[in-house]
Amino acid sequence: MEEIKIFAPASVANVSCGFDVLGFCLGPVGDEMVIRKSSTQGVTISKIEGQDLPYDVKKNVAGVAAETLLTSYPIDYGFEIEIYKKIKAGSGIGSSAASAAGAVFGINELLGKPFSPHQLIAFAMEGESVASGAAHADNVSPVLLGGITLVRSINPLDVISLPTPKELTAVILHPKIELKTMHAREILKKNVPMEKAIQQWGNLGAFVSALYKEDYELLSRSLKDEIVEPMRSLLIPEFESLKNASLNAGALGFGISGSGPSVYALTKGMDKAKKVSEGIKKIISPIGIDFEIHLSNINNQGLKIISSQ
Amino acid sequence: MEEIKIFAPASVANVSCGFDVLGFCLGPVGDEMVIRKSSTQGVTISKIEGQDLPYDVKKNVAGVAAETLLTSYPIDYGFEIEIYKKIKAGSGIGSSAASAAGAVFGINELLGKPFSPHQLIAFAMEGESVASGAAHADNVSPVLLGGITLVRSINPLDVISLPTPKELTAVILHPKIELKTMHAREILKKNVPMEKAIQQWGNLGAFVSALYKEDYELLSRSLKDEIVEPMRSLLIPEFESLKNASLNAGALGFGISGSGPSVYALTKGMDKAKKVSEGIKKIISPIGIDFEIHLSNINNQGLKIISSQ
Repeated sequence: MEEIKIFAPASVANVSCGFDVLGFCLGPVGDEMVIRKSSTQGVTISKIEGQDLPYDVKKNVAGVAAETLLTSYPIDYGFEIEIYKKIKAGSGIGSSAASAAGAVFGINELLGKPFSPHQLIAFAMEGESVASGAAHADNVSPVLLGGITLVRSINPLDVISLPTPKELTAVILHPKIELKTMHAREILKKNVPMEKAIQQWGNLGAFVSALYKEDYELLSRSLKDEIVEPMRSLLIPEFESLKNASLNAGALGFGISGSGPSVYALTKGMDKAKKVSEGIKKIISPIGIDFEIHLSNINNQGLKIISSQ
Repeated sequence: MEEIKIFAPASVANVSCGFDVLGFCLGPVGDEMVIRKSSTQGVTISKIEGQDLPYDVKKNVAGVAAETLLTSYPIDYGFEIEIYKKIKAGSGIGSSAASAAGAVFGINELLGKPFSPHQLIAFAMEGESVASGAAHADNVSPVLLGGITLVRSINPLDVISLPTPKELTAVILHPKIELKTMHAREILKKNVPMEKAIQQWGNLGAFVSALYKEDYELLSRSLKDEIVEPMRSLLIPEFESLKNASLNAGALGFGISGSGPSVYALTKGMDKAKKVSEGIKKIISPIGIDFEIHLSNINNQGLKIISSQ
């Protein structure tokens, strides 16, 4: 195999009670990437379409992730990467994670799969750190493993795949305002009240249980964020109205996707997702902000090969 | 049915990563209680053996729990309670929870079971608050529901039964020093670092997943307490040595039971539990503190009827 074309999906991290640990992979939204072997050693970014992103390998998340992988697997040739961005950078649905995960996934395929998906997470995390200023795994994990993942620990890296209830469906609203991950991190407090922290881990434990039991009601009761949402939601226009509209339209839960500005709702089934989408449109349309809405199943496969040669 | 004799088991709460939310029920250790209908309205504590506890219904956890239940179920007769304590008060393995849960369980049986076990938790919690100064449900829940439980929320009360991996076994060391729950609460900080809180909920999410998957290795990796153990362990003699000895003897995890002074270890199987018990004895014996060690399966039944008439 000399060349591979892949689909690198978007993802939702910081899923309410699972701040910094929970993430899930989206279906229809994602980038395409072409990765091919090159006689020149090292990594080259040869094309970027759809976004204004750096060609400098050291400043590009895909480049950094790819180079990190190759440090662990020295070879006498290299790789050329083409990136066709469809996920907007800074949208909060894992744009940088898709690029970082896509790069290491594609290279691993071309190398004959020397690394497991779990090992690829570690490489992709390095790419992620270029974008957000901190290495985190809660977007790259669901992209590389598919489905819903929990990052138990970053160091040592320990990521767990959680089961996906069959009818679980996501609605994503991307209000097109700029909100950098690094800025959204600065708004976070260094300390949290013990009482709130206890509520948060009670909710996360219940959420994990709900996934195993396919208990949508428990899932709904536990999809709460006592810690981060009260702070970060202030950065998102009409957050409370959007949340109320979604819950009134039957959403199981609603929260910030990643570090925003995108928000997500989870529903039981696509019909409910459509209703939630209508409710959201009624709130966001009059404001005059450009926006996109995505409806998606939970993507249990994650990254996908489109073609190879 | 006029009279019932029950077994009210001990329990372990604050299970490492699950501070204030996780608890499990023990098998062989527990109190006995006799509850009988009485022509006098209200609740009377007619006998207490094994411990010096108040006969005043308003100051006795069993009494308060029983009265709370009867407020929701007015009748023209009353109940007499005899308590045969085998669990030491202040030992950290749910002595007050056993009494509170036992009282409401027994009365509910004599009333013909008008309340579900979940409703009984709410009544028993009121009793618990007499002992610890705060209503909490993490001991009474596993006693009333059996097995391993997670308290997602106190208000509204929302308790989830978690699955018990078949071979899971507990070792309890009770060093006989006095340590009041109320004092152990005072040592807790009001705020916790965000970073530690994230580690804690990552671990709790992983622990819940491990229970469903019967994944003992993951269970072991996630049985950590980044928040409370560093503070409260200072109150327990030789805590670090006991922990090291337990882990070296093959324990999956080791931590403080409730608010101490008892400590617990979890193992895969009774053989490992015996080895851990030996390791613990070697550390605690030379200190000259009186102690008890209990080996126990996880008690999936909880409270048990011994006899009734």
